[in-house]
Amino acid sequence: MTTSAPVAIVLLSGGLDSATCLAIARAEGYACEALSFAYGQRHDAELAAAARVAAALGATGHRVMRIDLAAFGGSALTDPAIAVPEAPTTGIPVTYVPARNTVFLACALALAEVRGANDIFIGVNAVDYSGYPDCRPEYIAAFEGMARLATRAAVEGPGGGLRIRAPLIAASKAEIVRRGHALGVDYSLTVSCYQASPEGVACGRCDACRLRAAGFAAAGLPDPTRYR
Amino acid sequence: MTTSAPVAIVLLSGGLDSATCLAIARAEGYACEALSFAYGQRHDAELAAAARVAAALGATGHRVMRIDLAAFGGSALTDPAIAVPEAPTTGIPVTYVPARNTVFLACALALAEVRGANDIFIGVNAVDYSGYPDCRPEYIAAFEGMARLATRAAVEGPGGGLRIRAPLIAASKAEIVRRGHALGVDYSLTVSCYQASPEGVACGRCDACRLRAAGFAAAGLPDPTRYR
Repeated sequence: MTTSAPVAIVLLSGGLDSATCLAIARAEGYACEALSFAYGQRHDAELAAAARVAAALGATGHRVMRIDLAAFGGSALTDPAIAVPEAPTTGIPVTYVPARNTVFLACALALAEVRGANDIFIGVNAVDYSGYPDCRPEYIAAFEGMARLATRAAVEGPGGGLRIRAPLIAASKAEIVRRGHALGVDYSLTVSCYQASPEGVACGRCDACRLRAAGFAAAGLPDPTRYR
Repeated sequence: MTTSAPVAIVLLSGGLDSATCLAIARAEGYACEALSFAYGQRHDAELAAAARVAAALGATGHRVMRIDLAAFGGSALTDPAIAVPEAPTTGIPVTYVPARNTVFLACALALAEVRGANDIFIGVNAVDYSGYPDCRPEYIAAFEGMARLATRAAVEGPGGGLRIRAPLIAASKAEIVRRGHALGVDYSLTVSCYQASPEGVACGRCDACRLRAAGFAAAGLPDPTRYR
């Protein structure tokens, strides 16, 4: 990687999808600045995972922004009074955090503008998480359109170059696991569980655990997750 | 105001425009939840002003979110190493904070979703601040389009109802002052200065001070600003 590599901002939760997304951005030759959020989620294990993943995959930096979305409530991921479901549900799951991806992408846009980055990577996936409104392709396209009008480049030019990259949006979990495996992602570093222990040990029962385990099984690859 | 009044989220900086915007939303009959940000700006005088304005105009609540945009740098408003200009400049001023309105509106969207609010008010103004990309009508329209795809309502319905209200976007500063005056806004409570003292005393020389003073003069109304 030379110093002239283009810069990308990569949203990194510490889970399987965003780790794969970072590996894809690195493989495309970007100097990647990873961005994570302490937003009031139930556990910090995913932030520790994000730091491990950023280092392992050679991010140029890893920044954790603190935004108290928990103060707003309205999600099982930020409100201890709402239980994380341990069986499949219909409709949008209670683990949906209102406007979370919009807040995260907005912050990534601010960092991208300061760093002169044209590319923001986000590991959203519309197949497994079809219940989340802000994981859908039409949402990502609309955010990109807005972002192209939002910054200094929109007025001073060249403008229009900003891209929201969601390379996993149409992939199955098995495809994601296979792709990351081929790129050398060490999934033992990642934490997907919605209610992991502080050490990152997974419950094995929540939506995120079930999708992840099914993904490894369907990909025919060993699942390095530590379950309790 | 009955308890059945529709809820609006109103972005409130503590300055003249957002105070007027809150007064307009109140006059339209909304129960207004005011939202301010401690984002690393140079002074807290505007947050104290926002609290005074929210109380004076009968907001149902006033919330201050802490988001460290200063960590990103890139603006005279968040980086003490970049001086606030005291004479007119060309192009986008260095007081522009990268993607600030996108971050603020994203957080307002999260709160709106939790509160069941369809309306988000923002006091942007394209006339005086034509240099800021995120104060332009096309930007606001694009954010609204994105927001209508971003939340639970976009999937579960009714959806499409979310509105970004920017009632001052095409107004001159004099028109804003006249409108607020007619609605009973006490502008002595507001702070516009980019480099106000902790007590809210204005410099009288920065862009924000000059635009504000010219607005009162053009409106033919007394300027209650405290200058040092």
